[in-house]
Amino acid sequence: MTVKQLPLPELVAQCVRLGIPGIGLWREPVREYGIEATAALVRDAGLTVTTLCRGGFFTTEGWQAANRAAIDECVALGTDTLVLVSGGLPAGSRDLPAARARIADAVGVLAPYAADRGVRLAVEPLHPMYAADRCAVSTLDQALEIAERFPPDQVGVVVDTYHLWWDDRAPSAVSRAGAAGRIHSFQLADWTTPLPAGVLNGRAQLGTGTIDLPSWTTLLDTAGYTGPVEVELFNDTLWARDGVEVLEETVRAFLEV
Amino acid sequence: MTVKQLPLPELVAQCVRLGIPGIGLWREPVREYGIEATAALVRDAGLTVTTLCRGGFFTTEGWQAANRAAIDECVALGTDTLVLVSGGLPAGSRDLPAARARIADAVGVLAPYAADRGVRLAVEPLHPMYAADRCAVSTLDQALEIAERFPPDQVGVVVDTYHLWWDDRAPSAVSRAGAAGRIHSFQLADWTTPLPAGVLNGRAQLGTGTIDLPSWTTLLDTAGYTGPVEVELFNDTLWARDGVEVLEETVRAFLEV
Repeated sequence: MTVKQLPLPELVAQCVRLGIPGIGLWREPVREYGIEATAALVRDAGLTVTTLCRGGFFTTEGWQAANRAAIDECVALGTDTLVLVSGGLPAGSRDLPAARARIADAVGVLAPYAADRGVRLAVEPLHPMYAADRCAVSTLDQALEIAERFPPDQVGVVVDTYHLWWDDRAPSAVSRAGAAGRIHSFQLADWTTPLPAGVLNGRAQLGTGTIDLPSWTTLLDTAGYTGPVEVELFNDTLWARDGVEVLEETVRAFLEV
Repeated sequence: MTVKQLPLPELVAQCVRLGIPGIGLWREPVREYGIEATAALVRDAGLTVTTLCRGGFFTTEGWQAANRAAIDECVALGTDTLVLVSGGLPAGSRDLPAARARIADAVGVLAPYAADRGVRLAVEPLHPMYAADRCAVSTLDQALEIAERFPPDQVGVVVDTYHLWWDDRAPSAVSRAGAAGRIHSFQLADWTTPLPAGVLNGRAQLGTGTIDLPSWTTLLDTAGYTGPVEVELFNDTLWARDGVEVLEETVRAFLEV
């Protein structure tokens, strides 16, 4: 998503050229290019598919079929991790605890299906500003409470700096998640203000915002996380620029932080 | 602030007409009208000044003089409560724990000055989306941790539904704060999406958003809170309308929730 302006074949070629060893894919461009075609493209280039984004939205109709399809797509693409953006309040509801319970139940329904196929479900807590409309799971503690009902190789969490940087309880939750082997993805983005309208596409290039990103990478290291580190920037300004230039800039920023 | 389009004399007259017994004042319009003049206006109308907004911004230069002045204004206006919006990261800093420590230290510096004048300091946790630029105190637990270093009649907290509604730990913090007599203000606003650019002026009229406001008022009742309930809406659409109409609508919405 950081360089969604690049068509998949060019994205894959540029990753190879720049020495980026893995790629987190989103379902929409994958489906557009074709799932089998994408799988072949990435496999032939020698890239790892780090995660597939995203399943979830458990508080909307049709979540079961949509999530089973997403799990099947993980298998086809050769990734072991499906990122879950769990959904906000159901239409017309103001009951946030009920939405959270419904999300936990849905993960329980999907976990065996995913486990049978070798896919891990990664519950991603989103920033509290998305609690109403995108994800009622707002803290890493909440995500862990859901994950801990299942074996760690079945259900874990996503640690995304953009969503968690403000939370003084996040570091201890990272340690707890790391010790249990439940950190299934680590994503970086920086925070800048003012936030844009809709607050979706203001994630800043690494090093240009207020998040102490080196402390976060140290925290994850200390927690024993050795998996891939993804950079996930939703940013209208970056998307309007030349994708290759943005990708090169992102590699430099990543190495610096 | 809900009807900042109304000049103070008209606001006071309309509060009297509508049976609103108290008013939370903001420093800017008060200073513009004159502090003594405002005090006389409100006193002669028989209104209580519930709070003065706001002191704080402890991570910026000049906070000591600014906050002493705000405390003096509380005395002049006859209110016992100064609301503190504590400030975000200092310029150029990415150290959120240090900002929080600095805020706690500043409250410690001000508390005796305020106590000598019969003014309570009310630490307001702001939604985490303001952590970088407005208030590094993001949860009621954090605000309480600061307040609990002082006697409850010196330092307490503000419970604002807009800032806290997403937090599954807030209800227990409300109970703890209520039992200790540390809830110095209770403010209502509703949450709607999409948020506007800058995320400052999107607080919705009561009952039109996703917050279960009746549950919050019950929660505060159960916690033993018997003080005033303020409605604090920052909303460009409401500000663009006729202030008296908005005030009447707000009274109706308040009584409904």
